[in-house]
Amino acid sequence: MSNMRDVSRLDTLIGQSVAAIDTPALVIDLDAMERNLASMQSFAKAHSIMLRPHAKMHKSAHLALLQMQAGAVGVCVQKVSEAAVLAELGVGDIYVSNVVTALQKCEQLALISSQPEGQNASKTKLAVAADSLVGIAHLAQAMAQHAPAERLDVFVEIDVGQGRCGVSPGEAAVPLVQAISQSEHLRFAGLQAYHGRAQHLRSAAERRSAIAGVIEKVQATKAALQAAGFAVPLVTGAGTGSFIHEAASGVYGELQAGSYLFMDTDYAANEPDPAMPRFEHALFVKSQVISRQTTAGDDRAVLDAGHKSHAIDSGLPTIWAGHHADWEFFNGGDEHGILRGSSLPEIGDVVWLIPGHCDPTVNLHDAMIGVRGGLSKGHIERVIRVDTRGCLT
Amino acid sequence: MSNMRDVSRLDTLIGQSVAAIDTPALVIDLDAMERNLASMQSFAKAHSIMLRPHAKMHKSAHLALLQMQAGAVGVCVQKVSEAAVLAELGVGDIYVSNVVTALQKCEQLALISSQPEGQNASKTKLAVAADSLVGIAHLAQAMAQHAPAERLDVFVEIDVGQGRCGVSPGEAAVPLVQAISQSEHLRFAGLQAYHGRAQHLRSAAERRSAIAGVIEKVQATKAALQAAGFAVPLVTGAGTGSFIHEAASGVYGELQAGSYLFMDTDYAANEPDPAMPRFEHALFVKSQVISRQTTAGDDRAVLDAGHKSHAIDSGLPTIWAGHHADWEFFNGGDEHGILRGSSLPEIGDVVWLIPGHCDPTVNLHDAMIGVRGGLSKGHIERVIRVDTRGCLT
Repeated sequence: MSNMRDVSRLDTLIGQSVAAIDTPALVIDLDAMERNLASMQSFAKAHSIMLRPHAKMHKSAHLALLQMQAGAVGVCVQKVSEAAVLAELGVGDIYVSNVVTALQKCEQLALISSQPEGQNASKTKLAVAADSLVGIAHLAQAMAQHAPAERLDVFVEIDVGQGRCGVSPGEAAVPLVQAISQSEHLRFAGLQAYHGRAQHLRSAAERRSAIAGVIEKVQATKAALQAAGFAVPLVTGAGTGSFIHEAASGVYGELQAGSYLFMDTDYAANEPDPAMPRFEHALFVKSQVISRQTTAGDDRAVLDAGHKSHAIDSGLPTIWAGHHADWEFFNGGDEHGILRGSSLPEIGDVVWLIPGHCDPTVNLHDAMIGVRGGLSKGHIERVIRVDTRGCLT
Repeated sequence: MSNMRDVSRLDTLIGQSVAAIDTPALVIDLDAMERNLASMQSFAKAHSIMLRPHAKMHKSAHLALLQMQAGAVGVCVQKVSEAAVLAELGVGDIYVSNVVTALQKCEQLALISSQPEGQNASKTKLAVAADSLVGIAHLAQAMAQHAPAERLDVFVEIDVGQGRCGVSPGEAAVPLVQAISQSEHLRFAGLQAYHGRAQHLRSAAERRSAIAGVIEKVQATKAALQAAGFAVPLVTGAGTGSFIHEAASGVYGELQAGSYLFMDTDYAANEPDPAMPRFEHALFVKSQVISRQTTAGDDRAVLDAGHKSHAIDSGLPTIWAGHHADWEFFNGGDEHGILRGSSLPEIGDVVWLIPGHCDPTVNLHDAMIGVRGGLSKGHIERVIRVDTRGCLT
């Protein structure tokens, strides 16, 4: 029992059948995932746009490197600690697509940027976002001190509708780009322009319309910068719900979509757009029935998976299509799920769940079990560590 | 950067001021926590009832041992893997207050029960819940094979209103107790009777009324068992919202409350009952402002804490009372929080959040930073590992 907290104990599963996976566990259908990977890369190639998938979603160096081998230029992360871990594990091109402002964090970034890291012992190509003069000053100060021979790529984040970080589109970006340009330790790399909420607008028309508004805001900002004498080397952004529009815009040079690899219930609830590649569900929670009760007329199967094994911020999990069509999942708290419907499963039966939202679901697990040959009859090919699980800082 | 994933890196914080804690981070106000610990133990002593706090909440061997040193008889957990880790770390009395049915998991339990574990190399006293004949058969089979010299304590779970696991109150418990009694490897330890939803009924009167119904169901089950010739050694259950009623019932012998130690926003929203000890907020997320924007009339401070650093299943975090009274927290996604109100803080300013729900919040972190002397001017006394974080199986 002594290695319960050691992920390497799971490696003994490799080669065994799906039945050997203890529950609850996060399972990747590798065949489906690889089809998603190929579809997205084909799309990017056909549209001559760079793909930089978001590793905040899968939090895995192995999957980041797989995406880069398939043609991605690098990956995004949201946190400096994520960048540190992925760099150490050999991911050579990482963009922190989030503003970093604390001096201590800027110093950590500078250290990653200056040091040969990872298995290949070459320097990590690093970039970061900024939306404030104080953030830019801290980045410049940290680079001057810890990586004086390097220039850090800095993207200016603009608020294109998300209402979170980012300066207003247009002239507000100019003083930031000026400040970046005035530092010999920083390089203005372009604009960070991501509209998160637009990803989950259900109708294809609404998403199209929202991204049209985004494009206008980006163009207004480019125009303001050009008027001030600054070229914009790159515009980066987009997610799994909207990337076809950014790709078609002629304005974006790089797509940051992440969820396409696993495809969760929330994204699958979007009305498909004919121009969008089809992605399949590739991430599942394997659960099993631990209790089968009918009390006070309530007939239910109780599962061993609750919201400590799947995030519920974007809705509850749904049920894999291989199960009975009328089963419905209800929240049973931290450690339980409740299944209602007809012909319910019995104690010990396996129930496959599709998470509502991949990113925070993956973050709850130490590992994802990669299965080849399907959920019913497949075997375990690989245990994929969630390397940056819990990397919050 | 190479030790980003190693919690021991945080030990260098010990002795430093609160300001040294990088954000976001989970912080315990040790003074407040110890007052909560003492209040709860005094209550149990005054009411001559055993306290077995739920370690699913704090997931820490250190805190489990602290509770036992203060007088708790042991702790509860929900998962076999949690029991394995806590046993290994020297927690000597553990009750898995959840049904365990899979043979593989029963075997793991039997192994913990049979082996000297932990720092004191004495056997771990173990118990588990059951609500099915198949679960009981698997427990008996596993004990016969792996711990033939031991008897495992088994509680029969009854559904006292939660509508999750547990047989109907009354005669449905009889065949289960019979099955337990017929195994030479199991011992009928009593009834598991917990009404989770009653904990969060907002009015004191509603909680009192709900638990009155619980007590009736327990008594009906005791009567049915006694009529069948079975004594009920112990009734165990109760949570932070209701324990005063179970303690006063004369029916319960053991309380399982867990959240009292940290006291989250959800429990604090309950109307206080005069009979209940007062508990203070002792668990906080330290966050900082990373962006300060006003776009389209929306004035906001953006924090570096989102729902990867605090669970939102029971509502969003609230703001520490030491801050401006009208600040309000809004969901900013996985990695961001948004603060609105007057006199908003600026980039770099610290904002202390009170999580909506302790249990799944703790599960998102590798460690909790224990602070002595208050959040404003205190120093870091101890780094408390979240030993069973991610123990899902």
